[in-house]
Amino acid sequence: MRINRERLAKSMEELGRIGETPRGGLTRLALTDDDKRGRDLLVEWMRAAGLRVTIDQMGNIFGQRPGIETLPPVMMGSHADSVPTGGKYDGQLGVLCGLEAIRSMNDHGLRTRHPVTLVIFTNEEGARFQPAMIASGVMAGKIALEDAYNARDKDGLRLVDELERIGYLGPEPCVPRPLRAYLELHIEQGPCLEGEGLSVGVVEGIVAIAWSRLTIRGVQDHAGPTPMRIRHDALVAAAEVISGVRGLARAIGGDLVTTVGNLVVSPNIVNAIPGRVTMSIDMRDPHEPTLDRARVMLDAVVREACEREGVSYQLEHYWRVPYTPFAPDVVGAVERAARDVGARWRRILSGAGHDAQYMAAIGPAGMVFVPSRGGRSHCEEEFTAMEDIEDGANTLLLTAVDLAGRA
Amino acid sequence: MRINRERLAKSMEELGRIGETPRGGLTRLALTDDDKRGRDLLVEWMRAAGLRVTIDQMGNIFGQRPGIETLPPVMMGSHADSVPTGGKYDGQLGVLCGLEAIRSMNDHGLRTRHPVTLVIFTNEEGARFQPAMIASGVMAGKIALEDAYNARDKDGLRLVDELERIGYLGPEPCVPRPLRAYLELHIEQGPCLEGEGLSVGVVEGIVAIAWSRLTIRGVQDHAGPTPMRIRHDALVAAAEVISGVRGLARAIGGDLVTTVGNLVVSPNIVNAIPGRVTMSIDMRDPHEPTLDRARVMLDAVVREACEREGVSYQLEHYWRVPYTPFAPDVVGAVERAARDVGARWRRILSGAGHDAQYMAAIGPAGMVFVPSRGGRSHCEEEFTAMEDIEDGANTLLLTAVDLAGRA
Repeated sequence: MRINRERLAKSMEELGRIGETPRGGLTRLALTDDDKRGRDLLVEWMRAAGLRVTIDQMGNIFGQRPGIETLPPVMMGSHADSVPTGGKYDGQLGVLCGLEAIRSMNDHGLRTRHPVTLVIFTNEEGARFQPAMIASGVMAGKIALEDAYNARDKDGLRLVDELERIGYLGPEPCVPRPLRAYLELHIEQGPCLEGEGLSVGVVEGIVAIAWSRLTIRGVQDHAGPTPMRIRHDALVAAAEVISGVRGLARAIGGDLVTTVGNLVVSPNIVNAIPGRVTMSIDMRDPHEPTLDRARVMLDAVVREACEREGVSYQLEHYWRVPYTPFAPDVVGAVERAARDVGARWRRILSGAGHDAQYMAAIGPAGMVFVPSRGGRSHCEEEFTAMEDIEDGANTLLLTAVDLAGRA
Repeated sequence: MRINRERLAKSMEELGRIGETPRGGLTRLALTDDDKRGRDLLVEWMRAAGLRVTIDQMGNIFGQRPGIETLPPVMMGSHADSVPTGGKYDGQLGVLCGLEAIRSMNDHGLRTRHPVTLVIFTNEEGARFQPAMIASGVMAGKIALEDAYNARDKDGLRLVDELERIGYLGPEPCVPRPLRAYLELHIEQGPCLEGEGLSVGVVEGIVAIAWSRLTIRGVQDHAGPTPMRIRHDALVAAAEVISGVRGLARAIGGDLVTTVGNLVVSPNIVNAIPGRVTMSIDMRDPHEPTLDRARVMLDAVVREACEREGVSYQLEHYWRVPYTPFAPDVVGAVERAARDVGARWRRILSGAGHDAQYMAAIGPAGMVFVPSRGGRSHCEEEFTAMEDIEDGANTLLLTAVDLAGRA
């Protein structure tokens, strides 16, 4: 049994037009009008595939294909939101491969013991509402529903109001539900598979992630008549922190990655010394103790940079997800499927967070990776060759059938 | 003959309420609704003081008090726009002290040989439309009217459309006109006068100013699965440039000041490696050769930072104003007036650009400085004590009468 590559490609093309950028990328931020259009199309396709569609309190969409017994389902899914000027593979590929796996089961008249459920998670990226993976976080009981509802985008709009506005504030409780397994296909977003000429990654776990937020307060002043010796420039201190954050990855080495991705200057005009800077710090490593060590070094980097410039600061370590190992039986099933499909595969770790991370707290979870050209993602240049996607989708299909049990 | 301190204080208070911030500062960006309200009030006061009000093509407002002969006028003035979350002294104090000087001439029934004209320049700050001092620049023939008209704010609105929208697109040509002198009172915006306990600065000239714009293009990518060794992070390169810009002021020393005031990151989200950064570099020094040397060093700083990170860049040196010496006879007149007033004064250089800079290209120009508390400006904390303002306004008045000639 294999998926239908042409049908999958056609669905990718059609969904990819919603929120498409002029340069062929994707901007479909969570709970925007484009997100609604994407959801509507997916729901239409789910119903056409015979799935019973329900929506929960966080706007997560479920489409159930019944099993022949009353058992917990095998869930497959991912997210349909993107970052700004992102690509057409991150998220929606996993949703469409899950849908294609179900369509293929239908083609073959395959019955399973466990139900098979397609799921589409809300606001995985964290690009519009923070934190990322907010909806699977609520489902796993790691984030309070009320906190998620009150998350605000940069214009001050609340998540719950935007859910309601686009018609996806559903009635189903967003709580842990019994699971046979959760499976997610996703692009690797790194260079390893491509570099080794492989088509499938059997994901063993997800690195630990720590997010921090730094606010630096200097003294806003005129850029002309203010002598250098009396300046307290928030951006000069911020620059030292950025260099220091890069430097601590170099100092610790290994798999640690550190990034300052978000930085906002105030008042942000040519002839005023910046009085305030806010910035993010994202640090990831497979080993908790390494991340702990990085955090201690970060504290020192920030303290020293701000002391040197004579500015005050507030550093909040506001989000941390521990290292997530996937369930050995699911990882084993993915590996068997990859082998049966004839994919060129290896075991791999995920450097990015995924909804699978929270789902692993509810039940046995696993992931299938496909390569990212040039290791690139979160950009318009995201690309995965259709041959590799086919291997990945078939791996997902065989894994799901294996875990759901042929009837 | 002296100005009326209470009347001046009352006008400062009344005008300062238009665009007032919650913390007592001022946000009155050029050609906004608040700018229009400020202008309308000033025009009303000018007419009440018997001035003949005209508006030119750049929205500059002139109010003429006739002399007894047909001679070029003594102009006094400044600007009424502010930076975002700026203060109530930068700009409008010069306008109101000029108005108060004219009101005082009226009180005393003083007639002058030369006319005395109050002028309010459009968009001096450059906070909304760039470059700064755009309207005096057009008047001096240094900026083409068409270029000024096509300047766009961050929302893409054109200066000429905003002029028309608020009703200040006037019929008078904005061209050099004969001048007996141009006089501008302004806050020092630096710490020197306050530090020496002085009330008045007799300004000898304005430092040379160079503005550059840097765009860095890296590779936008996911902050998680992208190993450090393959990153090309535009913000990491930008941070090195910021540190380098600070460093070159330290290396050259003297009066050189260097500032990165504006910086914008794209896509600017926590979990994406920044693909693009744009930033400003502002450098000032009284000596042209020093500024030339700083520019050569800046080129090297940028080149080395971007090479190290493997990112491409574009560096534009888009605006430069040479050192502007003021007219010796005007500076001498300001000095005599400060002495006659009994002010505690010294000669001083201006570190900030002012409309007086361009006016000096049209005719003899000079400036009167009053102290800035803590040297602070372009911030809500701007403050000058009323005693010092009184000394400054009286210096302006006596200088104007001296140069216009008692009839």
